[in-house]
Amino acid sequence: MNIEMIRAARDRLDGHVRRTPLLNSPFLDEIAGRRVWVKPECLQHTGSFKFRGGWSAVSAPSPEDRARGVIAFSSGNHGQGVAFAAARHGVPAVIVMPSDAPKMKIDNTGALGAEVVLYDRATENRDEITARLAAEHGLTLIKPFDEPLVIAGQGTCGLEIAEQAAEQGIAKADVLVCCGGGGLASGIALALEADAPGLRVRPAEPEGFDDMARSLRSGTIERNARLSGSICDAILTPQPGELTFPILRRLAGPGIVVTEDEAQHAMALAFSRLKIVAEPGGAVALAAALFHGGEIEGEDVIVTVSGGNVDAEVFRLALERFTG
Amino acid sequence: MNIEMIRAARDRLDGHVRRTPLLNSPFLDEIAGRRVWVKPECLQHTGSFKFRGGWSAVSAPSPEDRARGVIAFSSGNHGQGVAFAAARHGVPAVIVMPSDAPKMKIDNTGALGAEVVLYDRATENRDEITARLAAEHGLTLIKPFDEPLVIAGQGTCGLEIAEQAAEQGIAKADVLVCCGGGGLASGIALALEADAPGLRVRPAEPEGFDDMARSLRSGTIERNARLSGSICDAILTPQPGELTFPILRRLAGPGIVVTEDEAQHAMALAFSRLKIVAEPGGAVALAAALFHGGEIEGEDVIVTVSGGNVDAEVFRLALERFTG
Repeated sequence: MNIEMIRAARDRLDGHVRRTPLLNSPFLDEIAGRRVWVKPECLQHTGSFKFRGGWSAVSAPSPEDRARGVIAFSSGNHGQGVAFAAARHGVPAVIVMPSDAPKMKIDNTGALGAEVVLYDRATENRDEITARLAAEHGLTLIKPFDEPLVIAGQGTCGLEIAEQAAEQGIAKADVLVCCGGGGLASGIALALEADAPGLRVRPAEPEGFDDMARSLRSGTIERNARLSGSICDAILTPQPGELTFPILRRLAGPGIVVTEDEAQHAMALAFSRLKIVAEPGGAVALAAALFHGGEIEGEDVIVTVSGGNVDAEVFRLALERFTG
Repeated sequence: MNIEMIRAARDRLDGHVRRTPLLNSPFLDEIAGRRVWVKPECLQHTGSFKFRGGWSAVSAPSPEDRARGVIAFSSGNHGQGVAFAAARHGVPAVIVMPSDAPKMKIDNTGALGAEVVLYDRATENRDEITARLAAEHGLTLIKPFDEPLVIAGQGTCGLEIAEQAAEQGIAKADVLVCCGGGGLASGIALALEADAPGLRVRPAEPEGFDDMARSLRSGTIERNARLSGSICDAILTPQPGELTFPILRRLAGPGIVVTEDEAQHAMALAFSRLKIVAEPGGAVALAAALFHGGEIEGEDVIVTVSGGNVDAEVFRLALERFTG
């Protein structure tokens, strides 16, 4: 896993991925006590950064290998990213999803052309189902984060951040990244190491699912006690990845952990101040910047809003609770 | 009013305005029956395209003339655009607003550093109040649309559309523009005439406030019967501008008129499919593309989402009514 793989992914993604802007608002700056710069990957194709990794992984194999199709397991965003990338390449995609994933994510994944296979988190084994289907149909498995091609795709977001920070004259800042398995965070970390060494990734996670923060602290991979039960569905993973953790251990600063209320509050502020739709898991880095300023140094902070695939009811609740 | 003024405005805006992306979604394409390309000016500074015209007008005078300050009347978005542009230039701004403007717009305008003067639409004369304050304090009036520097600023959005359409290989399409007094529509029309002659502006308006559509049909300026009473507060103007109408009469295609329900539905779809926040008046062009396809020709349609400054309650209602 190295920067050349990220630059190669950028070449493959060129013309297919959106270069998301870098947004800011004086109102957010005031809350945070410093300048807050937001990279809204909710505006990416399929509503999350996952399209970057999906496209990277689908576009890399030879056309012959690709033609048999791809398979992925996903609580939603990775599945949509892979499904849309596969559809655009004209190849079949099977997405294995938990039956309790947000309805919008299940519906969208199917509508984007993938075959959706639902499983029961409590009684069925996702990995077994996926392995069996892959073997039966000769499908290439695209893992959600512990896969070099996927990390390389997510890293293209970091190349953009490096460029955009330079345009704003930001040479030194923490870059807070919403973190599940660490694919986005590790990809961005590698990109920044090469192109913007004054910028440092710090993972942001929801309370109760702070496996990465704890793992970085202890220096060894730690697991979460629970596997579900947070509104931040997009970033609930049992533990850091085998590939992503060593990268973040080497490059990332300490993790920041936010409450669900803080994530909802950040969703409401992203609505009112940036006019973007953030899902709960996609808002944790913004929540960290706004409400955990004491854990951050410097005059600028950069955050990802990693996705916006949220059911309307969840979004309405956040607005109801946190807008005046 | 000519293209050179728009190019000069672009030079003044360079580095200060956001180049908003061009978004799309296969789900919207399916509803519309053609490819739909969305220019989300809700992501512009202050949440609407009005910042372009505001910056253009504030930046044009000499520093000496500018230093005395500026004044504008506005139901909200123009006021915020002028207020923020003035604050960034370090000059005072007075914004005259109707007391029934959305609370968010009134609050924001003040928070952006302007002095807000409220008046009662029913009993007070906005123009008199503005003229008196301008005279008393030596302020330069920045009209919301019938002002060449403002039209030039809004036209920079059209220069971007011309470039972005070319990047997507779109040589011929209707460009639906949310229309109040016609500042944005006429600026874009002039920009497209010069840089993308295959693209044609068509104003989009809410039912009951279709003065531009009727004026284009009759060839003479027509007034609206009412001056308020629509959720599309951003684009309620009594009649087309003296400067904007001749431009649109020469360059624009027929207007498209949408219902309030269609505007709300478009808000909900912009939320779920594009992850952007549109205000009712900012969603009328998208509504026209999605629900008035029979009035449009061609394989592609480009629309502006002109603003996103909507109170949370209004937004929640749109989601409640139009998401599944």
